[in-house]
Amino acid sequence: MTQRMVVVGGDATGMSAASQAKRRATREGRELDVVVVERGHHVSYSACGIPYWVSGDVADADALVARTVAEHRANGLDVRLRTEATGIDLAAGEVEVRSAETGKVERIGYDDLVLGTGAVPVRPRVPGVQAAGVLGVQTLDDGQLVIDYLHGLERRGRARRAVVVGGGYIGVEMAEALTRHGLAVTVVDMAEEPMGTLDPDMGALVHREMECMGIDVRTRTPVEAFLLDADGAVRAVAAGGAELPADVVVLGLGVKPATALAADTDLPLGRSGGLLTDLRMRVTGQEHVWAGGDCVEVRDLVSEEFVHVPLGTHANKHGRVIGTNLGGGYATFPGVVRTAVSKVCSLEIARTGLTEADARRTGFRYVVVHVESTTTAGYMPNAEPMTVKALAEEGSGRLLGVQIVGRSGAAKRIDACAVALWNRMTVEEMTALDLAYAPPYAPVWDPVLVAARKATDALAAVSR
Amino acid sequence: MTQRMVVVGGDATGMSAASQAKRRATREGRELDVVVVERGHHVSYSACGIPYWVSGDVADADALVARTVAEHRANGLDVRLRTEATGIDLAAGEVEVRSAETGKVERIGYDDLVLGTGAVPVRPRVPGVQAAGVLGVQTLDDGQLVIDYLHGLERRGRARRAVVVGGGYIGVEMAEALTRHGLAVTVVDMAEEPMGTLDPDMGALVHREMECMGIDVRTRTPVEAFLLDADGAVRAVAAGGAELPADVVVLGLGVKPATALAADTDLPLGRSGGLLTDLRMRVTGQEHVWAGGDCVEVRDLVSEEFVHVPLGTHANKHGRVIGTNLGGGYATFPGVVRTAVSKVCSLEIARTGLTEADARRTGFRYVVVHVESTTTAGYMPNAEPMTVKALAEEGSGRLLGVQIVGRSGAAKRIDACAVALWNRMTVEEMTALDLAYAPPYAPVWDPVLVAARKATDALAAVSR
Repeated sequence: MTQRMVVVGGDATGMSAASQAKRRATREGRELDVVVVERGHHVSYSACGIPYWVSGDVADADALVARTVAEHRANGLDVRLRTEATGIDLAAGEVEVRSAETGKVERIGYDDLVLGTGAVPVRPRVPGVQAAGVLGVQTLDDGQLVIDYLHGLERRGRARRAVVVGGGYIGVEMAEALTRHGLAVTVVDMAEEPMGTLDPDMGALVHREMECMGIDVRTRTPVEAFLLDADGAVRAVAAGGAELPADVVVLGLGVKPATALAADTDLPLGRSGGLLTDLRMRVTGQEHVWAGGDCVEVRDLVSEEFVHVPLGTHANKHGRVIGTNLGGGYATFPGVVRTAVSKVCSLEIARTGLTEADARRTGFRYVVVHVESTTTAGYMPNAEPMTVKALAEEGSGRLLGVQIVGRSGAAKRIDACAVALWNRMTVEEMTALDLAYAPPYAPVWDPVLVAARKATDALAAVSR
Repeated sequence: MTQRMVVVGGDATGMSAASQAKRRATREGRELDVVVVERGHHVSYSACGIPYWVSGDVADADALVARTVAEHRANGLDVRLRTEATGIDLAAGEVEVRSAETGKVERIGYDDLVLGTGAVPVRPRVPGVQAAGVLGVQTLDDGQLVIDYLHGLERRGRARRAVVVGGGYIGVEMAEALTRHGLAVTVVDMAEEPMGTLDPDMGALVHREMECMGIDVRTRTPVEAFLLDADGAVRAVAAGGAELPADVVVLGLGVKPATALAADTDLPLGRSGGLLTDLRMRVTGQEHVWAGGDCVEVRDLVSEEFVHVPLGTHANKHGRVIGTNLGGGYATFPGVVRTAVSKVCSLEIARTGLTEADARRTGFRYVVVHVESTTTAGYMPNAEPMTVKALAEEGSGRLLGVQIVGRSGAAKRIDACAVALWNRMTVEEMTALDLAYAPPYAPVWDPVLVAARKATDALAAVSR
């Protein structure tokens, strides 16, 4: 029975695991020491909220903190901030940690170890990337750096132009946040269209919306270098042969698993560099090491591949599963269907399952359909346009994926599709689904049902 | 092979069946005569849109018509308005119809007959119910009568007070529409709380919202009589011992299947008076008679009972299934999970599956949980409150039903629950569902996931 649990990383996975295990142990009258080491200044925060903090929608960092260190300590957790894990001794069952404040190094013994080390922003390997003002956005401390840098520019009257490198979720959200500070924003992306988690035909709708907001979007554009001023701060981005002036640069190229410590310990890593675990979130081949959140790979239940899907909702679930298992219960995390949702200006963007690119890469034969519809009955005054794209597998008829781009009320409809994917429904079955209908909420044929109908017809056509 | 198809009733089921069958036959180069008889003035309209037409949100009746008679005729359908089916001769394969305009009676032979006769508003059996100004709302012609009556009152300066009898969907929607005309509205309901399709604890939230709109809601109040003025028009409602002045009365007691013709023909009817069919929507025991929409009963996939669920979305699906089958294809309608959604002022209201009352009546043992959450991350400026109530079956752990009441963005989340019910998911499985998360759309634990978690915990507690 676990008597001491050491957790590396104090965000979603780590603190959920710690809290859940402690709660269960306490309920059963069992002693459980829980030590959490976190190298930053905060625990239990919403990294996904950072763009809204930068934009000013959220007043301060405190609002993004779900539970403070003091609250966790009051619950009996030994939380050590600004403390980095520097090594793991699997044989001895010890973690080596170093305090950033005192420089003190010590070893902490564990019965079970939980790795919730998260992810780090991808940095392009080009000259100047280490310049001041080239900023990644992953932790709350990163967010504070962005805000401080912007305030510094504003004080000096130099907050004029920003370049965002990468047009994925974080890039698009940060681009919008920067426009809210009055900066002229350019987004530079290697891909055909921004929001590369969608197919390009759907990404084109996002592109148009960004341009309507006044954002300069440059696609198929590689970054060649970051150019510095005399003080060593970024002053421009060389990209696609042009020189784009930039008082600040935000990196939105996505993140990669923070697994250097795990690699040093010879723990098993997947293709993306994320840790591999079983369904209970125990690291493969290890009895007493657990991992979850942005530092692991998860099973994609549609393609059956292991993939890296860094998202707060998964990280929280992983933490709860680990905490349940370490608290004496039994829980599993079966996998994901790659649901994701985002917003740019008033455009809502969602996906679940496979895109065409995913389906081709993994060798599925599929039909694809598009539906142009409205979020409510077409005759209602608040009817908003929405586009649905759906993929279904030839032969089996199974739904493979859905992408939605539209206005208010469009995106969360992806959830019905995510549950359908989870249950491996065919598009024909889906045509009968009892989705909520009333004029303020949907046309009498919900756009999701129309997509299922059209996909069923397309399957019939190819099988003739 | 069907050569002549006669359809009785030209709304959702009838016209969808007619159009779908004709389209398929034409595609295959086959002759198919389609005759539709409709006793009203309109076909293919959205009855659900009537409250929004009365309120003024929708400008005119034309907006509610999905396809006009002329369009249907251009597609080769023989549509006869103001023509009522007065008898069916199953042995001869003939329908007797009478034109309301010419009074002419004739018989039309069919190979296959489709009954889409819809439903009629329930009228309380109390004195005065036939008075002028006591109005049901079911067809577009009914909607026109309400609007004409209101305009008549307004011209005479007598549009001051309305009473709505019944606090279900149509009652609540019509109450709001009448307040938009400046009338003081009283809703009278026999039940403990309005919106009897929810449990009373959730209905109480609707009650409060209606009162905030200035609607006088009188629950546990039976209607005893309608009192008339000297001209025979309604002037008051006697209800619960009080006399409520009323310049107009709207009936919102729900509808019952319009199956008098079917009953005359000895076709099989269920407990609610709705026609019984197989999964292909063929009337039980009949080779060549089909039925769908508000005049049939459907299988509740949760309770396995046959129930009457009059909703445009089902009626359209039934029509499409019948048309596919009569057009040479194969299609079925498996049943419903009783999803429904409505809106009162800015309050969104949804249900799927069984309420506590349903579960008790059908003998399920269940746990029930409530979740108070928000539609977005709590720290976002547009976060709105929402309440989720969920039921799960003891033993099996299966989800039985969900009710949601909340503000903007709350109600359509019921769809994810409806798909989960459709797939007979357990609440434990549901805790892992990959629902869309980003701060503008959900807390990191979506309220639906929290409900699943709490229900799982509740099941564990009762099984200890």
